[in-house]
Amino acid sequence: MATHRFRPTRYHNVIGTAEPCLVVADGDTVITDTIDASGLDANEVQAMRGPNPMTGPFFIEGAEPGDTLAVDIIRLTPSRATGWTYSPLAVTVLDPAAIMSRPENQRAVWDIDAEAGTVRLREPPTALRNFVAPLQPMIGCFGVAPAIGQALSTATSAQNGGNMDYRLFAPGTTAWFPVAVPGALFYLGDGHACQGDGEIVGTGIETSFEMEVAFRVLKRRITWPRGETADDIFTIGNARPLDQALQHATTEMLQWLSEDYGLDARAASHVMGQVVRYDIGNVFNPAYTVACRIAKRWLHAT
Amino acid sequence: MATHRFRPTRYHNVIGTAEPCLVVADGDTVITDTIDASGLDANEVQAMRGPNPMTGPFFIEGAEPGDTLAVDIIRLTPSRATGWTYSPLAVTVLDPAAIMSRPENQRAVWDIDAEAGTVRLREPPTALRNFVAPLQPMIGCFGVAPAIGQALSTATSAQNGGNMDYRLFAPGTTAWFPVAVPGALFYLGDGHACQGDGEIVGTGIETSFEMEVAFRVLKRRITWPRGETADDIFTIGNARPLDQALQHATTEMLQWLSEDYGLDARAASHVMGQVVRYDIGNVFNPAYTVACRIAKRWLHAT
Amino acid sequence: MATHRFRPTRYHNVIGTAEPCLVVADGDTVITDTIDASGLDANEVQAMRGPNPMTGPFFIEGAEPGDTLAVDIIRLTPSRATGWTYSPLAVTVLDPAAIMSRPENQRAVWDIDAEAGTVRLREPPTALRNFVAPLQPMIGCFGVAPAIGQALSTATSAQNGGNMDYRLFAPGTTAWFPVAVPGALFYLGDGHACQGDGEIVGTGIETSFEMEVAFRVLKRRITWPRGETADDIFTIGNARPLDQALQHATTEMLQWLSEDYGLDARAASHVMGQVVRYDIGNVFNPAYTVACRIAKRWLHAT
Amino acid sequence: MATHRFRPTRYHNVIGTAEPCLVVADGDTVITDTIDASGLDANEVQAMRGPNPMTGPFFIEGAEPGDTLAVDIIRLTPSRATGWTYSPLAVTVLDPAAIMSRPENQRAVWDIDAEAGTVRLREPPTALRNFVAPLQPMIGCFGVAPAIGQALSTATSAQNGGNMDYRLFAPGTTAWFPVAVPGALFYLGDGHACQGDGEIVGTGIETSFEMEVAFRVLKRRITWPRGETADDIFTIGNARPLDQALQHATTEMLQWLSEDYGLDARAASHVMGQVVRYDIGNVFNPAYTVACRIAKRWLHAT
Repeated sequence: MATHRFRPTRYHNVIGTAEPCLVVADGDTVITDTIDASGLDANEVQAMRGPNPMTGPFFIEGAEPGDTLAVDIIRLTPSRATGWTYSPLAVTVLDPAAIMSRPENQRAVWDIDAEAGTVRLREPPTALRNFVAPLQPMIGCFGVAPAIGQALSTATSAQNGGNMDYRLFAPGTTAWFPVAVPGALFYLGDGHACQGDGEIVGTGIETSFEMEVAFRVLKRRITWPRGETADDIFTIGNARPLDQALQHATTEMLQWLSEDYGLDARAASHVMGQVVRYDIGNVFNPAYTVACRIAKRWLHAT
Repeated sequence: MATHRFRPTRYHNVIGTAEPCLVVADGDTVITDTIDASGLDANEVQAMRGPNPMTGPFFIEGAEPGDTLAVDIIRLTPSRATGWTYSPLAVTVLDPAAIMSRPENQRAVWDIDAEAGTVRLREPPTALRNFVAPLQPMIGCFGVAPAIGQALSTATSAQNGGNMDYRLFAPGTTAWFPVAVPGALFYLGDGHACQGDGEIVGTGIETSFEMEVAFRVLKRRITWPRGETADDIFTIGNARPLDQALQHATTEMLQWLSEDYGLDARAASHVMGQVVRYDIGNVFNPAYTVACRIAKRWLHAT
Repeated sequence: MATHRFRPTRYHNVIGTAEPCLVVADGDTVITDTIDASGLDANEVQAMRGPNPMTGPFFIEGAEPGDTLAVDIIRLTPSRATGWTYSPLAVTVLDPAAIMSRPENQRAVWDIDAEAGTVRLREPPTALRNFVAPLQPMIGCFGVAPAIGQALSTATSAQNGGNMDYRLFAPGTTAWFPVAVPGALFYLGDGHACQGDGEIVGTGIETSFEMEVAFRVLKRRITWPRGETADDIFTIGNARPLDQALQHATTEMLQWLSEDYGLDARAASHVMGQVVRYDIGNVFNPAYTVACRIAKRWLHAT
Repeated sequence: MATHRFRPTRYHNVIGTAEPCLVVADGDTVITDTIDASGLDANEVQAMRGPNPMTGPFFIEGAEPGDTLAVDIIRLTPSRATGWTYSPLAVTVLDPAAIMSRPENQRAVWDIDAEAGTVRLREPPTALRNFVAPLQPMIGCFGVAPAIGQALSTATSAQNGGNMDYRLFAPGTTAWFPVAVPGALFYLGDGHACQGDGEIVGTGIETSFEMEVAFRVLKRRITWPRGETADDIFTIGNARPLDQALQHATTEMLQWLSEDYGLDARAASHVMGQVVRYDIGNVFNPAYTVACRIAKRWLHAT
């Protein structure tokens, strides 16, 4: 149950099978640095090109294909006082007429006030002079190496995780990933100081972070990423269109309710039909992300 | 500002241009009865075949094509003590393998305890003996007559509203619809005692209601339904796939933020990018429904 | 087996249950006039507003809900010497960057030379001075009244047919429609002098026609429109996205191969897997259209 | 302009940056062996696991990122007398009710008669005793290494090509791929003796081949794969849903018509609107494939 302080010197634009940056034991904690989506580090120095340069991969001892890697997100601390976003809204969320009248893409700088827990546009238009967004750190892109030697761009996501941009991947959440290679080979990066549903400007507030996570190897099999917060459990589907991402997430939840909560397909549907919530992680990346979420107060583990 | 108590004697399976059941003035309130999605009334008597028999249409004086009809949802009171749902999950939310192993469709009865504010399965499987859903009434299907003489099935939805199955169409919410014909011709019905996101069993807890709504005619133009709760404003898109419903809702929100909150496309994107929420009304009907929602605390009306 | 020459005086923008314009017997032929998609008649006089004004409805004696109406397309003769199209490509077929750089919508006039069997742009840009399109008449929009009192815009399509814009709905083809109301109530219009796959400029070459069709009532049930040419049989699915239209068409073909060709699901898949062809009717309208087509030489009626 | 006879000893389940199996010059021809989608070679020996083991990669001298690799498909000769398919139809092309009643997946063997140019089921059901499919060889999966170190599963496809399963990738066709890495790194395999549109049983008639292809490096940039046959030019889009694949293919064709045929967006739309054809490569793989095709007789190179 050691804690490792790892300082990366190289980053990755794909999630695949690569030389581990560090070998850790099942149960260990890692504190490490991530650079922002465009490759700017804590000093705003370009440390790597985009998309979403990842820190890693971490080799977790004991993780074997077919296992599940649980990742406790303990702490996400911005390591600089500025972040950036794009504007205006992404073409993926607009009707054609709004695409045609869309202003040009611009980059805006935001000031992060960690003490106040706020984020503000550095040069707000008049109408936004009083707009103060909350500092709500989250991990945009993380996951484990996929099967059969694939190396997947950190712009996209799949069963192994990746660029999901879901705001509940935040401190206090445990994320689960299906292990496909020995050691799992875990990557993380693309931290956001804040982000609404869907990552609909194509970014969150992108910045560098010090991230602290702990690993546990579970000897069980899952198909899609899962997560647990203080209040909820959730499952993730990554695909296009949103319909298919939702189908993956819902099917994975059905599986989870059967395995851990003793609910067959009919019983699960009685609960989900009345209390399920769907969240949209991103509707911007090559694969979209939908979360199927249920508050734990409706469930009784068996 | 009269209040009308209207008792329907006929119902409609399409939303279109039909003989008004009642003419009311701008500002008036209507208290009326709705039967459930399958046509069962407060006495569980089959009053009309499905889908979603509607009460109406109400002709609102002064409403003209190009106007907006605001509908305050004042009260939704179940008019009987039972509701029903389908199980298991709908094929639209499952991966193919789960479709193949899906149990047969069944109808289940729920007991509504209005005083306790709860809904319970009458014959729960063992695993659900302690599952008590909240009584959270909502309107599944309502809207106004569409343009050019169309008569749209109450199974589906479009710009004029219809079968959206969104749980925030609940008491305290004001819904806005684009008026396409003189008098607007407003219909309502398909009340649910409770429903999760997506209407993923193909029903909410379907029951009959006494519904109280008030009408106001706004001399302004909208394209898609809008709504306002105590905390939020939201816009609705109805289409398949979910991606397109989301595009309609997002584009309508962009329009609203420009008109009423002084935010151009770039300023709106800065707010939406950080705080927008997407809800899925239904992912079951011929047209799916997505809501784009923003908490009013982030906005300052101009 | 009479032949009726019917001259319409009114047109319809919806396909629904309306007063028949003519009652005909099972086996009869009708020769009638259609106006173009924007309502221009043979004299280029505006006879009705768009979208796609329909001639009809024709009441076919003996057609009952659950039956099938077979419509032999005998002849489609343009009734004027000009047609028109839009340019450039529709937003539904372009990537976002191409939408952003898209020129403005324009209407172009084409000269129809019925004798030569050609269609030419009246004012071609230099690069198209030698571009001569073939005169290949087809019906853009036709079908029968839908169930439960629906009245569907002629801009869209559904199980009852409608605005499918499929180029094999041409002379020599027999189209089949599922009857939902007594008399079937058949409408037709929106003729095109020529059209590529997908109706990707939002129009074919739109013009007025004299159309000749013959009706037969089949005492059998179908779910989606079907067709037969000299060489092929095909089935139609209408929906969004294209994936779902294709699923409807494919499932309907599976049904047809079982009913008329003695092929169970496995045998049908062996044939379809090797020789099926998919055509895209339109990828422009609210519902897209996909045809699943098989050459009859691969099949042996049982 | 050498001709190389290359006998592979290892195969790849991903298309990415790997050690070249052979270095060839711009203009050279390669004759090589491919094994079937499940890894069976000419002797029906399991030479590699699936999916779609690739022969390659071939390093083409002079090919640089930003260039285009033209691949002339000269000859595809089956190297054994049997192929195999799955039945019944894939879940991706069926309505939910047909998915629920779908028979179990089975593998069927087909006899290839190269002399007769036919393929027959070895054990046909009675209804198919006279069904003889044509021998029409095609390449299911081929392409070049993608950018930024990605290694993409041969189950899917992207801008670099991959598992497109389009029947016009056949002898006589030239395919073009966008080069992303030095040497292009070309892979090929997954030959089919025959396949209908959409690869709707999840396979063509899968067999091993001797394939002969020639390479040319073009100093021009493309975004998506392109192709040319004796009669047609076509462009390829790979994505889900089909709508998006079609948008990619159409946009790429617009670009091609501008570059090589002097047609601006408006002129191109006049031609495409009247004569374009869309083909569906596959509607089975993780990314679907649509081809946008135009007969060359409508075009005049500038």
